[in-house]
Amino acid sequence: MKSADLARLRGIYPLADDDPRWRHDARAVVEAALAGGATALQLRLKRTSDRDALALARWASERAHKAGALLFVNDRFDLADLAGADGVHLGQDDVPPERIPAELRERLLIGLSTHTLEQVRKSRSRPADYIGFGPVFGTASKESEWSPRGTALLAEAVAAAGRPVVAIGGIGLANAGEVSRAGACAAAVISAIAEAENPTEATRALAAKLL
Amino acid sequence: MKSADLARLRGIYPLADDDPRWRHDARAVVEAALAGGATALQLRLKRTSDRDALALARWASERAHKAGALLFVNDRFDLADLAGADGVHLGQDDVPPERIPAELRERLLIGLSTHTLEQVRKSRSRPADYIGFGPVFGTASKESEWSPRGTALLAEAVAAAGRPVVAIGGIGLANAGEVSRAGACAAAVISAIAEAENPTEATRALAAKLL
Repeated sequence: MKSADLARLRGIYPLADDDPRWRHDARAVVEAALAGGATALQLRLKRTSDRDALALARWASERAHKAGALLFVNDRFDLADLAGADGVHLGQDDVPPERIPAELRERLLIGLSTHTLEQVRKSRSRPADYIGFGPVFGTASKESEWSPRGTALLAEAVAAAGRPVVAIGGIGLANAGEVSRAGACAAAVISAIAEAENPTEATRALAAKLL
Repeated sequence: MKSADLARLRGIYPLADDDPRWRHDARAVVEAALAGGATALQLRLKRTSDRDALALARWASERAHKAGALLFVNDRFDLADLAGADGVHLGQDDVPPERIPAELRERLLIGLSTHTLEQVRKSRSRPADYIGFGPVFGTASKESEWSPRGTALLAEAVAAAGRPVVAIGGIGLANAGEVSRAGACAAAVISAIAEAENPTEATRALAAKLL
């Protein structure tokens, strides 16, 4: 069931983020992403209380499921579970995927961020359904200790991962095609949608560049 | 089993906090609290990555259990569970205790912070094993939107709670006795131990003032 679901993690993978600097808030990005045809999206809440994050994740989960899309929650498997989300996306500093209770690992799709080929290779023996790799390009969305990885390294990551790879970092209309050609199954974006004049149209336009 | 355990939440209830401004770090406070005879303590990690918080909570849980003490984890029932801790302490903005999965609610002791009599009264119908009430006195340990509640209001909270009440906020050697006389089962302290020249002795001295 998890592998069937994962097929929907394809093309554009909008991240709905709670940073107040974005033109559109997380709720608006969820709506726009679904209206624009995204079949997977992620809630990335770094500034919201757990109580409010849970309420928002429940709402987003219901909205996504009505639209036939997958909802992932960033960082927190507990909130993903309580909200009825489809998966959790974990960074290297989050609870390690191995430590997620077995019954939740069966139920939740698990994404794991990687930034080096070493991390990608190590991830092969870890319980992750997909790998995030980046930052591919320069980005201002997230403070990163990593320099832009580039699409050549992304292609190597895809070859090494042995499972779907989601590209992230500085992806927009101008370079989305490159990311697809490097073999990424999807492109995660924050600012290209959250800062767009029309976030629904931005989602559609990005999706059209990604295969 | 939960009610038997809760008897150990009595007297001094040290909070091991990861704020770098404290003279003694969270690990040192755990060691000192146990050496000083505390039978319950709490890990309060606001600045630590989830990965490191889980590792620290596992360590603290083992140390506490060897010493026959209860370990609570602040804010996060998932980390409390994964670390093998005895309980979780929740604030009003954390995941509501009602939303914690039933099997974990059976296993974990649950503390809930309150700041008003209204919250105390509402908590009676909520799944909490003990209530935190404060800030009783003025404190610099935690930014609070609440003014000092005082021991008269603490006594009212104790009467209204219908379960054990832990006092918190500005408690030290000079006023610990008042807190006990108001009916609190325990006094949670951060700075009185984390800033003490000898945190083990500070734990012992505070414990002696509390009954």
